[in-house]
Amino acid sequence: MRIIETKDYEAMSELCVSIIVSTLLVDRAVNLSLTSGNTPHRTYEKLIDICSRNKQLVKQATFFNFDECFVGKQALTKDTMYQSLYQPLAVDTDKIYSITEANYLEYDTMIETLGGLDLMVIGLGGDGHFCGNMPMSTDFNKGCHRILVEDKYPWYSYLSTYFSGTLPKYIYTMGTKSIMKVKHLVLIVNGKQKAAALKQLLEGNISNEFPASILKLHPNLTIIVDEEASK
Amino acid sequence: MRIIETKDYEAMSELCVSIIVSTLLVDRAVNLSLTSGNTPHRTYEKLIDICSRNKQLVKQATFFNFDECFVGKQALTKDTMYQSLYQPLAVDTDKIYSITEANYLEYDTMIETLGGLDLMVIGLGGDGHFCGNMPMSTDFNKGCHRILVEDKYPWYSYLSTYFSGTLPKYIYTMGTKSIMKVKHLVLIVNGKQKAAALKQLLEGNISNEFPASILKLHPNLTIIVDEEASK
Amino acid sequence: MRIIETKDYEAMSELCVSIIVSTLLVDRAVNLSLTSGNTPHRTYEKLIDICSRNKQLVKQATFFNFDECFVGKQALTKDTMYQSLYQPLAVDTDKIYSITEANYLEYDTMIETLGGLDLMVIGLGGDGHFCGNMPMSTDFNKGCHRILVEDKYPWYSYLSTYFSGTLPKYIYTMGTKSIMKVKHLVLIVNGKQKAAALKQLLEGNISNEFPASILKLHPNLTIIVDEEASK
Amino acid sequence: MRIIETKDYEAMSELCVSIIVSTLLVDRAVNLSLTSGNTPHRTYEKLIDICSRNKQLVKQATFFNFDECFVGKQALTKDTMYQSLYQPLAVDTDKIYSITEANYLEYDTMIETLGGLDLMVIGLGGDGHFCGNMPMSTDFNKGCHRILVEDKYPWYSYLSTYFSGTLPKYIYTMGTKSIMKVKHLVLIVNGKQKAAALKQLLEGNISNEFPASILKLHPNLTIIVDEEASK
Repeated sequence: MRIIETKDYEAMSELCVSIIVSTLLVDRAVNLSLTSGNTPHRTYEKLIDICSRNKQLVKQATFFNFDECFVGKQALTKDTMYQSLYQPLAVDTDKIYSITEANYLEYDTMIETLGGLDLMVIGLGGDGHFCGNMPMSTDFNKGCHRILVEDKYPWYSYLSTYFSGTLPKYIYTMGTKSIMKVKHLVLIVNGKQKAAALKQLLEGNISNEFPASILKLHPNLTIIVDEEASK
Repeated sequence: MRIIETKDYEAMSELCVSIIVSTLLVDRAVNLSLTSGNTPHRTYEKLIDICSRNKQLVKQATFFNFDECFVGKQALTKDTMYQSLYQPLAVDTDKIYSITEANYLEYDTMIETLGGLDLMVIGLGGDGHFCGNMPMSTDFNKGCHRILVEDKYPWYSYLSTYFSGTLPKYIYTMGTKSIMKVKHLVLIVNGKQKAAALKQLLEGNISNEFPASILKLHPNLTIIVDEEASK
Repeated sequence: MRIIETKDYEAMSELCVSIIVSTLLVDRAVNLSLTSGNTPHRTYEKLIDICSRNKQLVKQATFFNFDECFVGKQALTKDTMYQSLYQPLAVDTDKIYSITEANYLEYDTMIETLGGLDLMVIGLGGDGHFCGNMPMSTDFNKGCHRILVEDKYPWYSYLSTYFSGTLPKYIYTMGTKSIMKVKHLVLIVNGKQKAAALKQLLEGNISNEFPASILKLHPNLTIIVDEEASK
Repeated sequence: MRIIETKDYEAMSELCVSIIVSTLLVDRAVNLSLTSGNTPHRTYEKLIDICSRNKQLVKQATFFNFDECFVGKQALTKDTMYQSLYQPLAVDTDKIYSITEANYLEYDTMIETLGGLDLMVIGLGGDGHFCGNMPMSTDFNKGCHRILVEDKYPWYSYLSTYFSGTLPKYIYTMGTKSIMKVKHLVLIVNGKQKAAALKQLLEGNISNEFPASILKLHPNLTIIVDEEASK
C-alpha cells in the first residue's frame, strides 16, 4: 500500500488523471475499470479535456464497469458511465463491457481472456464499501457475483432512501478476488466526510464489517487522499 | 487460484521443480523464497540433480528465507536451508538472506529494493499455518514481523513438544502483506494427513483461525496437490 | 540474453519442457507460440507425457502458430503442429490460432487483444532464419507479414528441393516486431550441425544476412544449447 | 511502437510528465532514467512543480543517468541532471547513479540487481543519436559501454564545436541492449528542426547510420511528438 497525501481535491484529481493517462499511453491494448460516483468528477473532467486534444489516447483501451444495479429498465452504472465518461471520450461501444445478469458468472473469465485489468480506480464508501462489496454482505472469497438486496443488511435503509423505495433486486459486482488481480489499484478519497472511513481503512482490522479493509492486501495499491480526508 | 491435482508425491514434485527451474532460466536476476520442511524434499532432490548438471542455473538467483526461529545459537530455518538446499546447490553466501532480529523490520524493503520476490514455494501446515503465520497469532495486515511465543496460542503445546521445552522466544516471519507481493506463489500439499487442511483452505472462510485461508486472495497462486491430499 | 549449456539433447529438452510446463501452471490464461521442426521433438514427447498425467495443464492455454506455408490444400505448419502437439495434448480447436492469408495483417492485433504472447519457443535455422524470417528477405521493421517466395533469395533452391518443386507462393510469419513483444523467448539449439550457426548468432553482427542475429536484442531471451552445438 | 501526436510542446510535456508521475505513484521501488537536454525542459518544470506539492512522490524512486562525458573535472550529464532535476526534486544522493569510467562495465548488472529500469525518457538527436549511441559508432549488440571519441566519426566536428575543442576522450552510455530491457521507453520529439529525424526514424531502415532506427523494435515504446515535428 502506498498512500499519497495531496493538498486538495484538485491535486488529488491531478495525480489520479496522470495514472489514467499514463495507462492509455503504453504500447499495447489496455483494460481499465473506472468508478462512477462523485469522487472522480474532477478527474474525469481533466481526462476528457486531455483526450479531446489527443484523440488517439483511448483507441487501445477497453473499459469494464465493475458493478451494476438494475432499476426498471435502467442499468444505473452503465448509464452513468456512458454519460459521464464514455460518451465524452467517444469510446467505441464494443470497447465497453458492463456486468449483467447474463454475464456475471463469466465476467472474470472474460476479463482474464482479454489480458486482465491494467488499472482500476475506485472510491471509498463512507461505510467501507468498495465497488458493490457492502458491509456484512461481502464474502472476501468471491470473484464477480451478485448480492440479493435484503433488509437484514445495514445498508438496506440507505439504499431504500437513495432509490426512493424501488430497490434493485440484486447488486452485481466484481469481488475481492477480481480486484486482487488488477495490476494497479488506485483508491481516491477526498473530503472531511471521508476522514473517518479512511482512518478505519488504515488502522482497522480486516473484516467484512468494513469491506475496504481487505484492500490493504492488494500488491499494488495507491491511495490518493486530500488534506481533509487525511486528518 | 489455480489448483492442479497430480497422481502422487513424485508428480507433485515434478511440477514444482519445473516452476523453480523455469524461474532460474529467465534472462534477469531473480529472487526466490523456498520453504524448508518435508513437503519439498523430493522437489529439492530433483532441483539439486538438475542444477548439478547445469551449474549456471543458480548464478542469477538470490534466496530469501521467509521465517526463522532461534534456539540457543542456532538459526533453525537458516541451518536447515543451507544443509538441504543452498550447500548442495553451491549458492554463494552473499546471495542468501535470512530474516533476523536485526533486520526483520527492514526485510520487506530489502526485498523490494532488489526487485521483489519472483517465486515463493510454501507448504501447508496441518493447522493452517503458512510460513510463520500461525493460528490466532496472525494479523493479516502485516508484512515481515515477529511473534512472541506465548502459551495462549493453540500451537504452543505443539511447539513445546517439537522443541523439547527449549522454545524460541520469537517466530520471525514474512507476513501476509509480504506474500501478496510475490509474483508467483506456489503451494505444495501432499499426503492424506493434509487432506483436511486442504479442504479447509479451499472451502473455509478467510480467518486467522486458519491463516492459509487468506492465500486464496493471492493474484497468482498455484496449488499443486497429490491425490491423497485432494481426496 | 541468457545462454545455458546443457550436456546433450535430453538435458536441453528437460529444461525447455520445464519452461513450457511452468507457463501452463500460472493462475491466468496464457498464450504460447511453439515451433514445429525437429529440435523440439523430445521436448514435446516430455510435454505430452506430463500433460497426459495432468490433464488440467493445457486448459488455460491458447496456442498461436508463428508461421505458415500453403502447398495445395495443405497448411504445413498447422498440420504438423496438430499432429505433433495439439492432438496429443487434446487442445480445444478454439484455443489454436494459425496465421493465414485472411488474417496475417491482423494477427499481431489478435494476439495483443488476448493479452500478448507469454512464451515462444523457437529453433535456429542453420542459415540463421527464425520463424519464417529468412536470410535477405527479412525486414527487421515488420510485425506479421508475408514474403513472396522468389528465386532471388539464397534459400530458394533449398526450399525448391524441400518441396520437390511445388513451392508455396508466400511464407506467412510473425516478424521481428511481433517477437520482440513476447514476454519470454526461448531458443533451443542442438547438434554439431548447428554449431556454426550458433557461433554466428553469438558473435556476428546484427544483419538480415543472418536474421537470428537480431534476437540478441530481445529483453528476455533464454538460449538452451547442447554440448555439440556450443562447441 | 505507439506514436501520439500532440498539438504543441506544452501538450507533449503534459503527457510526458503524466508518465513520470504515474511511475512515481506505484506501490514499490521504481528505477527511472531521464534525459538531459532541452526537449524535457518543460516536462521537468511541471514535474518539479507537482513534486514540490507532493513531496512523497520521489521517495521510492532511484535515478540512473544513461550517458556521461567527462571534460576536465566535470561530469557533464551528472552536473546537468543535478542542477535541472535532482536538486529541485530534492532526491537523496544515494538514490542517484551516474555512469563512470569505474562502473560502466557493471552498470547494466547494477541496474538489473535493483530490479531493472521501469521508465526511460529520451530525446531524439537530429542526427539520429539516442543516449550516447551516435551515428556510425553504434554497435546495436552492446549494453553499457564507452566510445572513443575519434575524428573518423561524422559527429566529431559537431562535438568539437560544442566543446570548443576540449573534447571528452570517451562517451559513456547505455547501449541498445540496456535500453531494450527498459519496461517503458518514452521518446519525446518536438519542433520542426526534428521533423526530418522523426520521419527518418519512422520510415527508414534499421541501421547504425541512424541509431534511433533500432528503437522501433522496443516492445513498449511510446513516441510523443508535437505538431511541428510530426509534419
